[in-house]
Amino acid sequence: GKALELLSSLGAEIGDVLQVYNDKVSVKGILMPSYSRDDSVIVLKLDNGYNAGFSVNKVKVSLLEKGNRPQERSEHRELLPGKVKIISTGGTIVSKVEYETGAVRPALSTEEIIRFVPEIQEITSISAEILFSILSENMKPEFWVKIAEAVKRAFDEGSEGVVVAHGTDTMSYTAAALAFSIQRLPGPVVLVGSQRSSDRPSSDSGINLVSSVLLAKEAPFGEVVVNMHGESSDTYTLAHRGVKVRKMHTSRRDAFQSINDHPLAKVLWKERTVKVLRNDYLRRSDGVELNPKFENRVFLLKFYPGLRPDIVDILLSSGYRGIIVEGTGLGHTSSDFQEAFKRAVKEGLFVGMTSQCLFGRVNMNVYQTGRLLQQSGVVPLGDMLPEVALVKLMWALGQTSDLEEVKRIMLTNLVGEYNPRHSLDHFPR
Amino acid sequence: GKALELLSSLGAEIGDVLQVYNDKVSVKGILMPSYSRDDSVIVLKLDNGYNAGFSVNKVKVSLLEKGNRPQERSEHRELLPGKVKIISTGGTIVSKVEYETGAVRPALSTEEIIRFVPEIQEITSISAEILFSILSENMKPEFWVKIAEAVKRAFDEGSEGVVVAHGTDTMSYTAAALAFSIQRLPGPVVLVGSQRSSDRPSSDSGINLVSSVLLAKEAPFGEVVVNMHGESSDTYTLAHRGVKVRKMHTSRRDAFQSINDHPLAKVLWKERTVKVLRNDYLRRSDGVELNPKFENRVFLLKFYPGLRPDIVDILLSSGYRGIIVEGTGLGHTSSDFQEAFKRAVKEGLFVGMTSQCLFGRVNMNVYQTGRLLQQSGVVPLGDMLPEVALVKLMWALGQTSDLEEVKRIMLTNLVGEYNPRHSLDHFPR
Ligand SMILES: N[C@@H](CC(=O)O)C(=O)O
Ligand SMILES: N[C@@H](CC(=O)O)C(=O)O
Repeated sequence: GKALELLSSLGAEIGDVLQVYNDKVSVKGILMPSYSRDDSVIVLKLDNGYNAGFSVNKVKVSLLEKGNRPQERSEHRELLPGKVKIISTGGTIVSKVEYETGAVRPALSTEEIIRFVPEIQEITSISAEILFSILSENMKPEFWVKIAEAVKRAFDEGSEGVVVAHGTDTMSYTAAALAFSIQRLPGPVVLVGSQRSSDRPSSDSGINLVSSVLLAKEAPFGEVVVNMHGESSDTYTLAHRGVKVRKMHTSRRDAFQSINDHPLAKVLWKERTVKVLRNDYLRRSDGVELNPKFENRVFLLKFYPGLRPDIVDILLSSGYRGIIVEGTGLGHTSSDFQEAFKRAVKEGLFVGMTSQCLFGRVNMNVYQTGRLLQQSGVVPLGDMLPEVALVKLMWALGQTSDLEEVKRIMLTNLVGEYNPRHSLDHFPR
Repeated sequence: GKALELLSSLGAEIGDVLQVYNDKVSVKGILMPSYSRDDSVIVLKLDNGYNAGFSVNKVKVSLLEKGNRPQERSEHRELLPGKVKIISTGGTIVSKVEYETGAVRPALSTEEIIRFVPEIQEITSISAEILFSILSENMKPEFWVKIAEAVKRAFDEGSEGVVVAHGTDTMSYTAAALAFSIQRLPGPVVLVGSQRSSDRPSSDSGINLVSSVLLAKEAPFGEVVVNMHGESSDTYTLAHRGVKVRKMHTSRRDAFQSINDHPLAKVLWKERTVKVLRNDYLRRSDGVELNPKFENRVFLLKFYPGLRPDIVDILLSSGYRGIIVEGTGLGHTSSDFQEAFKRAVKEGLFVGMTSQCLFGRVNMNVYQTGRLLQQSGVVPLGDMLPEVALVKLMWALGQTSDLEEVKRIMLTNLVGEYNPRHSLDHFPR
C-alpha cells in the first residue's frame, strides 16, 4: 500500500514519532498500527491520547525520532503484580471501519486490542479473550450467559478485575444481566465501549480502555459498572453502576448517564487515578457466585394513548411469562387495561410497572388509576429503570416460576437497582 | 363544616387576609376557596403565590384585614382587550384531593378554575370551558380530535390564545397531536398542567396557569407549546415546542424538558413578562386549518435483547397499520428482525425507526445492521422523539393509506418535529 511504501522509505516503524503537516495542520504523534483498509491512511497517537488517521495523499510526513515498538513494552508484563482480563464481545471499541462502505464491523484480534492501546500494559499485566465479535444490537440473553461464565472463569484464574469490551447500544442491558447473575464479585466488572471507532480522530476507544483497565485493577468494589466518557472532552470517565445507567444520546461520547443515582467512581486517565465517589458500594468478595439463567419470554410494553388493551391478551396467548409496563408519569396506563392485566396476573404472569419518564420513581397510590392497576395485580417497581426491570424479570423467571417468589425477587434491592434516596442533583438540567 | 363555622365566627370571607399560627408556624395569606372535602381545611394564598392548606384543628386563625372578594376583581373583565380561552381536559391542575383516600380526581368547575387563580383576570379577559374531566392517562386519540375542535372554535370566536389544562402524564402526546392537526394557528395553544394538586402547599398550578394565560395572550407565535416550571423553584416557566418535549421526571415540577431542541420562550410570572428565546417560530396566522384524523392501529415497539421477531408478525395479523420502532443507539434492532420488517413493509405497513436514547438522532448508515434494516424498508426518522413519531404516524395514516405518501409525510418537517441542527447544550448533564 501507499502508506506502507512511504513509511518504509522514511525508515519509520510502529512506535516512532512522526510529524505530519500541510498548509493547514501540523501534528506530531506516535505511529500506530492502522486498522484502515484504505492503504493511504496512517494512524498517529497524539499527545491528547487520541488516535488520528491521516491520508498520505493530503499530508507530508517526516520522521522525528525512533521510539520503542509497543512489542518491546510488553516485556514489562510479567513484572507487574496486577492482572486484568479483557473479554471482548464486539462493538465499535474493537472495530475497524470499512473504508469502501464506511460501515463499522467489530473485528480486532486479541493482539490488536492490546496493541491498539499499548499503555494499558504499563498499568498491569493484561490478558485478552475474543468471546464474540458482534454489534451489541445483536446481543441475546444466551450471550449474557456466556459472558457471565467468561467473567467467572477470569476471576477463578486469578484476575483482579475484568474489562468487558462491548457495543454501546445494549451495554446497559448486559450490565444489568451480569449484575443480577453474578452477585458476589472479587473485583470490578467494567463494561466499556466507544462511540467513535478506533481509527477515527475523535475516537474515545483509547481513553475508555485505559481508564477501564485502571478501574478493573484498582477500584475497591466488586460490582458491575459501565465506564465511559464523563463529559464531551477527554478529561475523565465515569463508572456508573450497571443497574442504574442508560445510554441517553445516540452519538455523544458522554452518552451514558446514571439515572436516579450518582456514578460510583471517576477515572482521571492522564493522572492514572481512580476517584471513588461513594462509599455505599459492594466490597470485593472472595469467590464468585454465578447464577446466569434467563427467561426471555418477557415483554416491555410502552404505554401510549390509543394503545389497545387486547395487546395484553395477545402477549398472553403468545406464551409470554411476564410484562414490564413502561407507564406514564407515576406509573399509569389508561383504566381500560385493568381487566386485561387482571386476566394476565390470574394466568400467572408477572406484571410490573415502571415509568417512561425514566427519572423519578413510580407511585401508584396518588391517582385512582394507579390504585386500580394495583388492585389488578400490577406491581410498582419504584425507581428501577424499565430496561433494568425487564432484565431483572428475565432473570427472576429464570430462577423460579412461582409468582410470589418472582414478586419477592423483583421487590428486593439485590445490587443497587433501587435507590431509596433521590437528591435534586440526580436530575440533569 | 368546622372551617366554615370558624371563618364565619371571625367574619372572614374569601379574599380577606388571615393569619394562621401555632407554636411551630405563623403564616399570613389571602383566604381562598377550598376544594378540599375535609371540612376542617382552609386554603390561603401565600405571598409566594402558593396555595397552602391548613387544618383548623392544628392552627389558630385570626383576621388581619378585609380584602376584595375575587368576584369584585372580575368586574375589570370587559375593560381589557385580550381574550384567552381556557379549555380544561382534567389532570391535577384542575383537581381536588380527596382527603379521605388521598387520591386526586380532576373536578373543578369553570368558575372554580378562574376563582382559583383570580390574578389571571388581571392579564386579560378569560373564558373557560370544561371539555373533559379525565386523568390524562385516560386520554385517547378520539379526545385529541375533540380538543383540536375546541381549540378551533375558540380561535373562531376571537380568542387570541388558548390554554389547554391537561394532565402531565400524556401531555406531550396531546401536544404533538394538536400540533399536527392544527398546522396554521392564529395564536399560541398552551398546554399546561401541574405536578402537585392545587390544594397542596407546593402546588405549581397557580404559577403555571398565570404564566400560560400570559403566554397565550402575548407570545408572537402560532404554535402548540407545553408551558411548565423551568426549574425546581418558582422563578419561571418554559414554553417547549409541543413536538420536542417530554416529561422526564415522575414528580418534579420542572419535569418537562425540550429534547434535541431549545424552549421557545421563558415566562417570568412575577414580572408578567414573556421572553421569546428564539426567532425561528411559526408566526400567528390568520385563520385556523384543522385536520384532526388519527389512525390508532399503530404500535410503538421498544426493542431489547431477547425480543423475538415474531412480535412483528403478531402485530401484522392483529391489524396494525404501522410500527414505530424505538431502536437502540443510532437506530438498530438485532438483525433477525430484517425479514419480519421486510414482510411487514410488503404488507403495506409503515415501519419507522427512532432511538430509545431519546437524545441525538438516528443514523442507519454507520453500521451494517442499520443498512440492512433500511434495505428491509425501515425508515430512519432523524431526531424525532419516539412518542412524537408515533402520534405523527397515527396522524399521517389518518390522512392517507398510500404508503409512499405516508413516508413523504413522515419525512417532511411539518411543525418543527425535526431539528436539523443540534448544539452541545441540547444535552443536559
Ligand atoms: N452499534 C454498535 C455501537 C457501538 O459499538 O457503540 C454496538 O452497539 O455494537
Ligand atoms: N396522572 C395525572 C397527573 C397530572 O395531572 O399531572 C394526569 O396526567 O392526569
